[in-house]
Amino acid sequence: MRILLQFPEGLKKEALKHAERYGREGHEVFLSGSACYGACDLALDEAKAIKADKIVHFGHAPFLRSKLPLEVEYVEYHIDANLEAVKRAVKEIKESKIALGTTVQHIHQLGGMRRIFESLGKRVFTGKGALAYHEGQVLGCDSAAVTQFEEAEAIVIVGDGMFHAMGIMSGKPVYVIHPQSGAVRNIAKEIEKYGKRRKGAIAKALECGRFAILLSTKPGQFHPELAKKMKRGLEGAGKTAEIIVANEFSPNTLANFTEFECYVNTACPRIADDSEAFGKPILNPDMVAEMLQMLRGLRPK
Amino acid sequence: MRILLQFPEGLKKEALKHAERYGREGHEVFLSGSACYGACDLALDEAKAIKADKIVHFGHAPFLRSKLPLEVEYVEYHIDANLEAVKRAVKEIKESKIALGTTVQHIHQLGGMRRIFESLGKRVFTGKGALAYHEGQVLGCDSAAVTQFEEAEAIVIVGDGMFHAMGIMSGKPVYVIHPQSGAVRNIAKEIEKYGKRRKGAIAKALECGRFAILLSTKPGQFHPELAKKMKRGLEGAGKTAEIIVANEFSPNTLANFTEFECYVNTACPRIADDSEAFGKPILNPDMVAEMLQMLRGLRPK
Repeated sequence: MRILLQFPEGLKKEALKHAERYGREGHEVFLSGSACYGACDLALDEAKAIKADKIVHFGHAPFLRSKLPLEVEYVEYHIDANLEAVKRAVKEIKESKIALGTTVQHIHQLGGMRRIFESLGKRVFTGKGALAYHEGQVLGCDSAAVTQFEEAEAIVIVGDGMFHAMGIMSGKPVYVIHPQSGAVRNIAKEIEKYGKRRKGAIAKALECGRFAILLSTKPGQFHPELAKKMKRGLEGAGKTAEIIVANEFSPNTLANFTEFECYVNTACPRIADDSEAFGKPILNPDMVAEMLQMLRGLRPK
Repeated sequence: MRILLQFPEGLKKEALKHAERYGREGHEVFLSGSACYGACDLALDEAKAIKADKIVHFGHAPFLRSKLPLEVEYVEYHIDANLEAVKRAVKEIKESKIALGTTVQHIHQLGGMRRIFESLGKRVFTGKGALAYHEGQVLGCDSAAVTQFEEAEAIVIVGDGMFHAMGIMSGKPVYVIHPQSGAVRNIAKEIEKYGKRRKGAIAKALECGRFAILLSTKPGQFHPELAKKMKRGLEGAGKTAEIIVANEFSPNTLANFTEFECYVNTACPRIADDSEAFGKPILNPDMVAEMLQMLRGLRPK
C-alpha cells in the first residue's frame, strides 16, 4: 500500500522511525513535508499527487465530517501528564465549580484529572465541543467543551502552551495548568486584552476600502460559500472585496498584494491572532458582521 | 467562467485591477495567494479546490508539456529595457562572439538587443533552451539558450538581479547588463564560487547516513520516479533515505525533521542555492550521482 505519513511540527522529529516501520511492513512510504497545524490540515493535495492509498495522520483526533477521497487513519499521540503535579496545582484554585478541558495529547487522562478535582470536593463539568472529537477536548477553534456550562465558576485547561486556552472567550477565570510542572496561571486578563484587539481591528477596518478575503484549501478550513457571502456583504457596503485562495497564508506573500488594506479570514479563526505578522487588520466573519452593522448605523437612513 | 488569477511575487501588487477587469466581464474571480516562483509553479491544487474553469497565469511564458487538467492561459508581462543604456553597456564588452540571453520580461526586445551587438561589429548567438519557451530565454533551471555555443567567447544576459545569470555554468565570462541603468558586470568569479559550494556539499553528504529526498507537488517540479530512483541509489549505498513530499519546502518546517542529515532535491534545482537557510547540505540529483560514484570508489572492491 502507498502511504503518506503526516506529522504536526512537534512530532516530525520522530518521523523516520515510523517511516521505517511502515517500510518494513512492505508499504511504500512518503512523508508529508508541509507544516501541519491540526486535524483540519490534512495533506490531501500531497496524497493525491503521489496517488497514495491512505494518509496516516499523527497527533490529532478525527475532525472532518465530510467524505474524504481516500482512507485516513488518525493516530493520536498521548503524553502522560504528571497527575501529582496537577493535584498540587488544583489545590491553588479557589473556585469549586469547574469546567475542565484538555488537549488531545492528554485526553486519555481526563478521567484521572476529573477525579483529582472531585477528591478535593469540587464539582466538575466536562462537555463535548462542536468540532472536537473527544469529550473534554479543547481545539484552537472550538472551546465549547468548557464554555457551555453557565454554572461553572472557573475554567481549567490542562495543557502546555497558551494556544488552546487563549481562544476561550468567557468572563470567568481561566486557569492553565502545565501538565508536567503543575505550574498554574489565571490568564483571564490576557484573554480580555486579546478580546480588545478585536475591537481595535474592527475600528481600523471601518476605514478600509479594499478587502481581501482569505479562503484556505485546507480540507477542514475550506469555506467557499462563506467567502462569497463575505464578498457580497462587503461589496453591498461599498467596499472592494476579492477572494484570495491558498493552502497556507504567509504574511510575506500576502504582503505583496499591496493594494489590499484589510483581510477577512474564513480559514482557521486563530490566524487573526497573528495580525501583527500580517501587518493589516484581520477580521473573522463574526467581526465583519459587526463591522457591517456599524457601517449601516453610520449611514444616513 | 470561474477564473483563478495567479501572479508571481512582483506582480501581486497589480492583482486588484486585473481581478476587477475580469469581474466586470462577468467572470467569477479568485486570486491565488501562494508564492509563485515560475511557470513551473502552477496553482493547480487551488484551482481544483474552487473548481476553476481556467487559470490565468501572469508574468511567465508556457513551460509545462504534460496535459493539464484545466485550461491555462499564460499572460507574459513585458517591461521595456532601455536599449540606449544597453548599447552603452555593450561598448564595455571586449569579446566579439557573444551568446545572448534575457529573461521573459524583456524577451520581446531580443531582436533589438541583437542588432545593438551587431551594429558594434559583434557576432551574436541566440539559442533555444531545453525547457524555455522562447528563443534566447533563460530560466533559473535552463540556461541552455546561452550555453550551447562553443564558439561564443562570452555570455551576456540582459536582466535585473543575478538569479538567472548565476545558474549559468560555463568557463566563460558571464556579463549581466541591467536593463534600465545599463550597469554591466562580469560575474564569472561569483559563478565559480557558487560551483565550489557544490563540491563542499558533496563532501559533507558523504559523511551523512540519513537522507531526505524532497519531492515537490508543483506541476513543473514533480518527479516521483526520479525521487524513487534517488532513494534506491542511496539505500543501495547503505544510506537511509525517505521521500518528503510538499508543495513548497520551507526551511523551518523541514528543520523539524531533525533526524535527517542531508537533503536530496528533486524539485527546482535552484533550491540548493539556499542551503544555508536549510541548515543542511542539499544535493541535486547529479550531485548524488557524483557522491555515489565517490562512495563506490571509496569502498573495498
